Amino acid sequence: MTQPEPTGSGKEPLAAPDITPLLQTLGHWHALSPEIEAYLKQHVIACTARKRKMLLKEGAYCNYVYFIVKGAVRGFRREGPKDITTWIVLEKALVTSIFSLDERAPAIENIQTLENCELLALSYDRLDELYNLYPEFNLTARKVLQEYYADAERRAFIARLSNAEDKYRHFLMLHNPLANRIPLKYIASYLGMTLETLSRVRKKFMSRV
Amino acid sequence: MTQPEPTGSGKEPLAAPDITPLLQTLGHWHALSPEIEAYLKQHVIACTARKRKMLLKEGAYCNYVYFIVKGAVRGFRREGPKDITTWIVLEKALVTSIFSLDERAPAIENIQTLENCELLALSYDRLDELYNLYPEFNLTARKVLQEYYADAERRAFIARLSNAEDKYRHFLMLHNPLANRIPLKYIASYLGMTLETLSRVRKKFMSRV
Repeated sequence: MTQPEPTGSGKEPLAAPDITPLLQTLGHWHALSPEIEAYLKQHVIACTARKRKMLLKEGAYCNYVYFIVKGAVRGFRREGPKDITTWIVLEKALVTSIFSLDERAPAIENIQTLENCELLALSYDRLDELYNLYPEFNLTARKVLQEYYADAERRAFIARLSNAEDKYRHFLMLHNPLANRIPLKYIASYLGMTLETLSRVRKKFMSRV
Repeated sequence: MTQPEPTGSGKEPLAAPDITPLLQTLGHWHALSPEIEAYLKQHVIACTARKRKMLLKEGAYCNYVYFIVKGAVRGFRREGPKDITTWIVLEKALVTSIFSLDERAPAIENIQTLENCELLALSYDRLDELYNLYPEFNLTARKVLQEYYADAERRAFIARLSNAEDKYRHFLMLHNPLANRIPLKYIASYLGMTLETLSRVRKKFMSRV
């Protein structure tokens, strides 16, 4: 299995990719050199993906890092008959399967859009070339990874809480913008609780406001 | 609150730190330049820490990255009356509170030895200086972080599984060396199950061998 190309069916290439949001986001971690900006402008691909489009399927090789210009995306794994949502992110997030991209191995997770999305994509080969041509990009990547790693630890902590109210409280602290935007079934799957439990907990939290 | 110094009480400084295991481990990701090796030899501190020593307490600033030469270390957070173990690692692992170190913010987690440990420590200031003096170290750090980030995602997945047998099966796949070395109460805390459930599941797995 191979990962669908960003310009493949269901994702229409846009005429002149405006990668300003990506450059701004990366620049927040470390100022990009004019050479790195020029490289990204030349090689980043813009694409759209409809709601519930699979950007990566388990077993395929992850060949892209995506940046979300507009929309929402989730990662999930299958365990038996169940989907287990492992993360949900919005605009300005970078999205990939780090294990598959880094190790050049088949992905153990799925990546799916939850809304109609505008995305920017950089292929693994181009990213690798970018590191080789401009090694200072390692500094930006190191800072991005530090922050994303810390986020992964925070997500893992929420998953380890046993009490549903504690989980939802930590969810609101970490992911407030998701609460009234993402369908509840995905939030329930992310929090490892039934839809009924999530609805009950949400009612309690709303009545406190 | 401040983090205890690696040379503080309970941790005896060793005479001539041999940092070969650290250099070998880092070299596995990317060959280190002689300048970087020399810098590390000059600034890495060797120390020992007895079993159940706190290397970092919640609320303190994390000022060190540790490398485990010998021993076992866990990360945990408190939620109400409970300890929640978030990771357990052994020899050759790098250990820090990434959020606290990176953001220069009070730690939200605790780090504790589970065995008598031999450690190598590099302070935040020295690590920062290392990045500034030898920017090519960002490449090594980027590769380390990619791998550790992928590991964090795998740990989070285990935490999200609801079935105790599935959890233990994935635990054995990811952390086999821990199974017969680490006290069961920490493994139970890591897997989010009671000691009784863990013992029951382990018996089932052993009877299958």
